[in-house]
This record gives sequence, structure tokens and C-alpha cells, in this order.
Amino acid sequence: MLQEFVFGQERRTERECKSLLKVRREELAALQQRIKQAGLPVIVLLEGWSASGKGRTIQSLIRDLDPRFFRVLSVGPPTPAEQRWPFLKRHFECIPEGGKVLFLDTGWMEETVRAYLRGDLSDQEYQKRLESINIFERQLTAGGYLLIKIFLHIDAQCQKERLDGLAADKETLWRVNDEDRRQNKNYEKNLAVFDSYLEATDKPWAPWKVIDSTVAPKANLAAADWVYQQTTAALESRPQPVHPEYHWDMAPPLPLAQADLTQTLEEKEYRKQLKKCRAKLAALHNELYRKKVPVVIAYEGWDAAGKGGNIKRLASALDPRGYEVLPIAAPTRDELARHYLWRFWTRLPKTGHIAIFDRSWYGRVMVERLEGFCSTEDWQRAYDEINEFEKELVDSGMVVLKFWVQIDKDTQLARFNERQADPAKQWKITEEDWRNREKWDAYETAINEMLARTSTTFAPWHVLESVDKRFARIKAMKIVIEAIEQAL
Amino acid sequence: MLQEFVFGQERRTERECKSLLKVRREELAALQQRIKQAGLPVIVLLEGWSASGKGRTIQSLIRDLDPRFFRVLSVGPPTPAEQRWPFLKRHFECIPEGGKVLFLDTGWMEETVRAYLRGDLSDQEYQKRLESINIFERQLTAGGYLLIKIFLHIDAQCQKERLDGLAADKETLWRVNDEDRRQNKNYEKNLAVFDSYLEATDKPWAPWKVIDSTVAPKANLAAADWVYQQTTAALESRPQPVHPEYHWDMAPPLPLAQADLTQTLEEKEYRKQLKKCRAKLAALHNELYRKKVPVVIAYEGWDAAGKGGNIKRLASALDPRGYEVLPIAAPTRDELARHYLWRFWTRLPKTGHIAIFDRSWYGRVMVERLEGFCSTEDWQRAYDEINEFEKELVDSGMVVLKFWVQIDKDTQLARFNERQADPAKQWKITEEDWRNREKWDAYETAINEMLARTSTTFAPWHVLESVDKRFARIKAMKIVIEAIEQAL
Repeated sequence: MLQEFVFGQERRTERECKSLLKVRREELAALQQRIKQAGLPVIVLLEGWSASGKGRTIQSLIRDLDPRFFRVLSVGPPTPAEQRWPFLKRHFECIPEGGKVLFLDTGWMEETVRAYLRGDLSDQEYQKRLESINIFERQLTAGGYLLIKIFLHIDAQCQKERLDGLAADKETLWRVNDEDRRQNKNYEKNLAVFDSYLEATDKPWAPWKVIDSTVAPKANLAAADWVYQQTTAALESRPQPVHPEYHWDMAPPLPLAQADLTQTLEEKEYRKQLKKCRAKLAALHNELYRKKVPVVIAYEGWDAAGKGGNIKRLASALDPRGYEVLPIAAPTRDELARHYLWRFWTRLPKTGHIAIFDRSWYGRVMVERLEGFCSTEDWQRAYDEINEFEKELVDSGMVVLKFWVQIDKDTQLARFNERQADPAKQWKITEEDWRNREKWDAYETAINEMLARTSTTFAPWHVLESVDKRFARIKAMKIVIEAIEQAL
Repeated sequence: MLQEFVFGQERRTERECKSLLKVRREELAALQQRIKQAGLPVIVLLEGWSASGKGRTIQSLIRDLDPRFFRVLSVGPPTPAEQRWPFLKRHFECIPEGGKVLFLDTGWMEETVRAYLRGDLSDQEYQKRLESINIFERQLTAGGYLLIKIFLHIDAQCQKERLDGLAADKETLWRVNDEDRRQNKNYEKNLAVFDSYLEATDKPWAPWKVIDSTVAPKANLAAADWVYQQTTAALESRPQPVHPEYHWDMAPPLPLAQADLTQTLEEKEYRKQLKKCRAKLAALHNELYRKKVPVVIAYEGWDAAGKGGNIKRLASALDPRGYEVLPIAAPTRDELARHYLWRFWTRLPKTGHIAIFDRSWYGRVMVERLEGFCSTEDWQRAYDEINEFEKELVDSGMVVLKFWVQIDKDTQLARFNERQADPAKQWKITEEDWRNREKWDAYETAINEMLARTSTTFAPWHVLESVDKRFARIKAMKIVIEAIEQAL
């Protein structure tokens, strides 16, 4: 896209561009209200050469906008702290809520391309990154986000003059660093890599717009025009990404009906094994910490199946400074206004830490599906999106474990009644639990579908037969031990 | 508190302590439900010598607790990124929500004492820190938090043996660092500083408990007893801190009635000055960035007074990568469940950045006061708490500016009617605006009291006479310019 680019195509004068820009800015300001009403979340990503005018372009775009309505983020290279998470985490974290616009002064492109040029990413790793980025952008778009991508292009001579200009003024000298100089010296090499990045990530639902940024007013107008066109088009009908045909490697099937719920463990044997598992886990946690391997464990299961107690036994073996249990309740206002995976991306464990999710992103294909909190297309698409999400985590070096805590309907009834009868446990049972129970069959269908479609080889489901809770606890601990041992 | 401490006072045997601990742990588990029902937020802070067993104590305390109900945080030294904010920010950020318990493996004490011992804090800075910490702890307690502080004490010999033990095992060798060794070598010096810290921060509403941690089971029992006692006592009646008698240095009074609302600015003059102010501000923002000075600007004002437009003009002069406009709406569920200043502490600008708050922490003494969202004691206490908050920011090197955007009642009516009549502006006016208007007089009283009690010399209020919006905009920009120039 850059190799064949012809500079100087804009024939209108600077003066003409300026006056057109004025009108366009007013139109953009008027658009705000429509964006807000439509609840459309918008990301405007500015990438380009050093000194190509990214900051200037953003300043021009926002000039007439209500500052309460947008946010500008200048994304630097990842800090050592940020490097303890998968690289997409910090980008996912800052996605805007519906009805707001986020302007990014570079984003995941700059980070990726620079790392590749520095040699920090191998060719293979770079390809993997491009794939992750395409998935990220497709998921956002499918989730209703409008992603506007602009690349500001200048030639080597223009870049050199600008860098010299900045360096000559002591007020702006600090804005020129060695890396910028190196980019200019190796202009052709950089051009080729930029170009390959743009080609690889140019999709109909998130297309690149390359803008000639040699003359500021012309570039500013082109950027404003593009943002205006993309936004008005999206307000009519949002571009729907093409969902790929996936062939996931699936783990052996786990239909609920085949779970052997008669399995038990005697109290004495349980105590013995618990002690053994605890010691083993404590030692492994130490090693995890030193080798900086992060672990995610997701618990799902019927009400009263014994999730809480199971998590407690597992957690009691771990160093409390190195794990966190994350109870997932109904999403908050902030969470509802964003992509459904946002609240999980932001809660991922850092290297060496363990995050135990008490309910998880699988809510999308269970409660959200059955209660109609999302559309049919949403939850159907979610199976693949979740697999993609977990693949991203696994590929980044994370251990991902998923437990379904299983009981039968009669056991649930017995436990509900028991809770109701015990004043110390009454708080554990709510009206909602009884309502959910009535939908047992619908849930069972959804769960079977979930197990069938998301039990991949890299992140398989494990069913914990929990009519005998002791059996389920030891089974969980053994699975965690085995998975961590394999990872280390 | 440490100098006169006598080791070995616990006469019960280890075995006795262990069996008592078992019972106590069950009692702690039963307490969870009461904490949850009472919505009591609890912080258990573990401080002490290196190798005194902080991690072990926490592990013992949480052993029987439901992991969904607490969180353990291991607080390390501040990272370079964290150092770009006032030191309390990262501690305020992690305070728990009501009904949950946060266990801290060291907190603001360790950070402060180590910095002082390293010589990174002068005597005077250290004293200032102690004061900030006392204010922090008092504000939390007054806000309904239970703060349980434990110091684990061991003697020099015991510490040396433990460090040697850790270092001898390759599994645990990494846990001993040079600083730990230095602490042991300079035991007496460290003891004196620890002691002075404990003395200075030992308050009836947040007392220290020094525990002999020489024998693990004895220490674990003592910690569990203390947590149990403090919690049950707080569930009966929370310790109310003594609110100090303050004599703030106040700026000249600014009663609303005295604002001269006839002040205007001609369109031509306005354009001229706007251009001048913009250029000036842009240059200053650059300098702020280089000198790493953070700026907070809070806007408050009547509905339709012109806050939005005023903020917009100010923001348009700034580098969009270096400022953020933060619209403050009704608190979210997460925010309501925490101290009312939490959502402001977490949104503070980092060094070199500007945060513009569109409405602010002053909601406490306006809408929350008038709508009864907090108790009378709450909002009355808030004047001093807000002064303390702003003092903390100013002392950390932040510029703090506060604008009250003023119009009269007739002007508001005219603007409301104008908005209602204009389809493009109808969204700006809601039922709530009309309801608030009916309470004009009550608000005026509250605002006058707010101005009188929080216009300090270090963070004075400025009234922006905004019947002529142009006048108000230029006035705001000039005040910002002057304040930044003074700070640089």
C-alpha cells in the first residue's frame, strides 16, 4: 500500500483545504450527538512515520469536539510491568465505552513493527502477532466497534527535514530520539515492513487509509474526511466482519450425561490426598513464580454444585500473595458499555500469578444466551471468539484450565433444601437459584453445546463430578497439578 | 512500642496455640457473613521485619475463609510508573469495597520507612509522610473502613537465623535480598525507625498490634485473635476517629452574590485574546511536560452556566496527548461501595499531564448533601477532608485549580428555554435540570458554604462570571496560565 503510493495527489490549495476543513469540523461536531445516541464506540488509530504529524492530526480532529466525549491516548512502548501480560491486554484495556471516541496516537501497530525491526520478534512471532491483531480487530468490529485506521505517510526527505527542524529548537529537541533517526536512515527497510503490516491487516471491516502528510492542512482535511465518512457509514450500517471457517482441534467430547456421578472418596483417603496435593501445589506455585508462568483457572457449574468449596480447597494450597479469586457477577455499567471480553482481559493474571475465576466469560453462552442478554448471532459467534481468546492466552505462555462442576438435578434440590433449612446457609440461596433450576433442561442443552464447541486441545474442559464434593476437590487439584507440571 | 517490647510472653504451648487457632479460624469464617451483611470494608495490614513471617501469617488467617470474599495483595516498592503519582495514590487505589477484606503484605509503612532509611526522604519529608499517612488512615476510618494493623516483631538473632535458613535452600534463596541482609546488620537502627513510625501512627481508631513472631503458631494465634477482636468490636460500633480542629489558611472570601455578572468581552477582543492565550498555554503545556508537573483543574457550576464550552476552549489549547477531560457522573456500583474520594484518587493525572474534571469531589458537599446521599456528618466532615486531599496533591507538586462557573437565575432560565426550543440542543436539557433549578436557593447556600470553607490559599476557588461566556472563557485561561507560570 505504501510502495505504490504517489505523493502530492491533492490538487486543492492549502487555503481551499483549510476552509473545507472548517466545515468538516463542524460536521464532525454535529456527528458527536449521533454517535452518542447510537451508543457507537469508536477507535481512531493514528499510525505513521516519526514526525509525520500524528499529534497534529489528532489535535485538528478534536478541535471542535466536546472534550467530555472523547479521549486521546498516547501509547508508548510497553513498560516492564506491562510486559508481564499478553501484549494485547493493555490495548484491550483502553477500548472506549459505547457512544465515546478514543483517539490513539499509535497503538498495537507501532509496538509490533518496532519490536520486529529491532529483532525482538522472529519472523514467525511477527506473523503470529499479525494474526492476533487481525483477530483482535475483527472481534472488536463484530462486537459493534468502529475502528478507523489512518497511516500518515511522508517521504524520507520530508522526514529528515522535520526531524532536523525539531532538533534545532531546544523547545522540541526532546521529541527526537535515536530510534527516530534510525528510522530515517533505514527508511526503505522501514517502508517495506510498514507496508507488509498494512497489507496484512487491511480488512474491509477495518481498512487502512494511507494519507499523504507532507502538507499539514491537506493531511488534516484528508483525515477529517475519512473519519467523517467512516462514521456516517457506520451509523447507517456497521461493517460486518467475515467470520472465518474454523477447524479447532477438539479434545475428546464430554457430554454431561456421561459423567459418572457415583464416584466418591472416603473421608480418610480424602484427608490424605488433600495433604499431599496441597504440598505439591505449594511447591509448584513457587516454581511458577520463579519461572514467571501465569495460570488462569475458570470455574463454571450448577448452583450448589460446590464451586465455592472446591475453589477454597485449591486456593488454600497456594501462596496468597500469588493468586486471586475473581467472582464474576452481573456486569457493571462500565462493563456493559464495552466489549463483553473486556472485563476478562483486564483481570488476567500477570506472569507467575494465578487467577481463579468463579464464573467466567462462558456466561456469554449460558446465562446471556438463555436470558436473551445478547443476540443469537452474538452467542453463536462467541464459541469461536472464546477459543480465539484462550488460544491467545495459551500462545502467550499462560496455562488455561476450565472446570465444569457437575451434579444431578436431585442433588441440587437436596442441597437447596438443606441450605434453606440452615440459618447459617440461607444467604447462599436466592429466588434466582430457584428460577434457574426451572430452566435446568435449557441450561443442559447450552452447557453440552458449550463443552462440545470450546473444549479445545489447548484449553480442554474438565468435568468435576461433585455429588461427592471430596472427590471433585481432589480431582480438581490433581488436574491443576498435572497441567502446571506439564507447563514447567 | 518496640524498644520496651518483651519477647516470649506467650506461656501457652505450641500445641495449645494450634488447637485454639483452629477454633478461632472457624470463628473468623463465621464472621465473614456478618462483615458482608454489614457492608464493612476491612483492611488487614501486615508489616514487620524481613523474614518475620508476614506471608505465613496471612496464609494462616485466610485458611478457612471463602476466597471470593477477600483479596491478598503483596505490595512491592513503587515502580517508576507509580512514582509519577502522589505516593498515596497506589494505596488508595486498592482499598476494598464494602463487605470485603483486603490483606496487605506490607503497605505504606514499609515503603515509607525504607525510603527514609535509604536517605531518599529527608527528616522533614519523612515527618510530612507520617502526617499524610495519619490523614489517610483517619479518612478511611471516618469513611467506615476498619483498619487492622499488625507489626510482626522478631529479634536480631531470630532474623539472622531465618535469613540464613532461606538462603541455604535453593528453593527459597531468591527470597533473600541485600536489603534484608542490611536490615539485619543494622538491626538497632532499623528498630529505632520502626519504633518511631509505630509511635507516630498509633491511633485509637487504627491502633498497632505488635506481635512476637518468634514462634509461628503463637504468632498466628495472636494475629487471628487480634483480627477477630477488632472485627467483632467494629461490627458493634466502629471506632470513630477524632476529627482535628483545623485552621486552614483561607483565600479571600468569594460569596456568589458579589460576583459581577455584567462583565463582558467583545467578540473581536475575545478572538484576539483567545488566540494569544492558546499560544501561551500550548507553550506552557510543553514545559509542564518536560518539568513533569501535573495539573488538576476542577470545574463546578450551575446547569447551563457554560462549563462544557469553557472546558472545550481551554482544552483546545493543549496537546491532546497530555490532558484528559473527566466527566464525573453518578457513581457506579463499584464506586459507591468504596470511600467517596476513591474515584478521584484513581483518576489523578501523572506527572506532566493535565486532568480536567467536569464536576468533581465537590459533589459531596453539593448534590450528595442536598439529595441526602450521605449523612450530615459525612458532608460536614468533607470540607476538611477535601482540603486535606488537595493539600496532599499540592504538596506532592501538583497544581490544583478550581472554577465555579457562575450565572444568575434568569440567565439559566433563558438558556434552558433556548435549549428546549432548539432540536440540536434538546439533549442538553433534562427533567433533572428543571428539578435542580427548583432548588436554586438551597444550592446557593451550599455553594457559598463550600466556597467559604474550601477556598484555601494553596487551592483557592475562582469564580468565572459566565453570563457572557466569552468573558468566562478568557478569564479561565488566564488563571490557568498564571497558575502554571507560577508553578514552573
